[in-house]
Amino acid sequence: MMVSRLTIEYDGTDFAGWARQPGLRTVQGVLEEALHKVLGPLDVEGEPLALTVAGRTDRGVHAWGQVASYRHEALDPARWNALLPEDVAVLTCEPAAEGFDARRDALSRTYCYRVLNRRARSVFMRGTALFCPRQLDREALTACAAVLVGAHDFTAFTPTETDHVRFTRDVLDARWRIDDDVLEFWIEADTFMRHMNRVLVGTMLEVAEGRRSQADFTRLLRGAPRVDAGSTAPPHGLALASVRYPLR
Amino acid sequence: MMVSRLTIEYDGTDFAGWARQPGLRTVQGVLEEALHKVLGPLDVEGEPLALTVAGRTDRGVHAWGQVASYRHEALDPARWNALLPEDVAVLTCEPAAEGFDARRDALSRTYCYRVLNRRARSVFMRGTALFCPRQLDREALTACAAVLVGAHDFTAFTPTETDHVRFTRDVLDARWRIDDDVLEFWIEADTFMRHMNRVLVGTMLEVAEGRRSQADFTRLLRGAPRVDAGSTAPPHGLALASVRYPLR
Repeated sequence: MMVSRLTIEYDGTDFAGWARQPGLRTVQGVLEEALHKVLGPLDVEGEPLALTVAGRTDRGVHAWGQVASYRHEALDPARWNALLPEDVAVLTCEPAAEGFDARRDALSRTYCYRVLNRRARSVFMRGTALFCPRQLDREALTACAAVLVGAHDFTAFTPTETDHVRFTRDVLDARWRIDDDVLEFWIEADTFMRHMNRVLVGTMLEVAEGRRSQADFTRLLRGAPRVDAGSTAPPHGLALASVRYPLR
Repeated sequence: MMVSRLTIEYDGTDFAGWARQPGLRTVQGVLEEALHKVLGPLDVEGEPLALTVAGRTDRGVHAWGQVASYRHEALDPARWNALLPEDVAVLTCEPAAEGFDARRDALSRTYCYRVLNRRARSVFMRGTALFCPRQLDREALTACAAVLVGAHDFTAFTPTETDHVRFTRDVLDARWRIDDDVLEFWIEADTFMRHMNRVLVGTMLEVAEGRRSQADFTRLLRGAPRVDAGSTAPPHGLALASVRYPLR
């Protein structure tokens, strides 16, 4: 069964997230529209030609290395990009191994949340970093990230009304990379729940501002209710950076 | 005489350049409008309160470190930025030495022109780099930049219809910094003529594509006519990076 694998970059600003929704401009919708123009509405099995994705990003969230798959022939990225609007681009498109599925086969996803921590706002980072002019305890951020590694119950970090049935996630790596006034939170986990990264960042920033203790943050990782955690950081600081798959 | 010095960042995409022009949205116009709201229409001498600038950038050109001055008190950047649209920001605003003039006192300006040289276009660099999918001879670019250093007659690199009266410029430094598929042309000179950097880049890219010889490029620096040089690269790849002043 013919399968193709895509790597995709998008600026989430003007998208209502990844997932196709009637009447809304979504990344999946825009990509499938281009795909249907070239290959028609059906895949090689005669089913509706559709994309399967590694990370269903929310409204306003960006991607630097999203991965998707579909059951039809690969198209040259230049051909894709000629059909796509300027806020989404296909970086690679290649034939994948028999039965490849971008969601099911992914071993982990890595996200990056960027914070600009200085007095003056930035023009060029306005769409891709949270501007935070308040003083932040950077060592507190680093300490918070360190306790995230491992398996934890992240119930506190996703909305109470939820479709998730399992609330434990396995965090493979989590750290703040700090370069002068640009603070980046990098996290790799098997999968993520809705809003999880944004609530993690919102809560860590409360610790870094001295409004919440380090011990309180650690306690949240044991299945505390959503109301105990902090605010949801805005989506524009977040990007799906990359997806990891087994080596062939 | 009270003088203040500003460092300014702007995204040139939606501006008709720096210089105030009736009926057009310009960086100077937007900044002076904010200034007048706080300090009124006159400077400390009773003259119209206006900005003097180090580099008058063209329509669509960006700035990371533009410098301007005005004869009135300094305002906190946070106060400035609350009054400014999101595509322009004041980074610093400080009292300057008696008689300081951002244009006259500048020793040199440094510009950066960014080229993205790969097969797939970029979403996040779409507004700040020229996308060039053709194969480029990067050593040829480096060789071109090397011959720019020194005093040359740049008549070939500015429009024939011109207000400039002197066509020699002193290039203090010029080099391509290459990081994987991002090629940046950095140039520092005493002053620049209109379109000079964009014609330099357009012409160097013709050399790098094999459409023009290295010797031909070198010959252009001896006062050749505009028609002998290459095309004008688009403005969105260019940014005024910084301005140098004497140490106090």
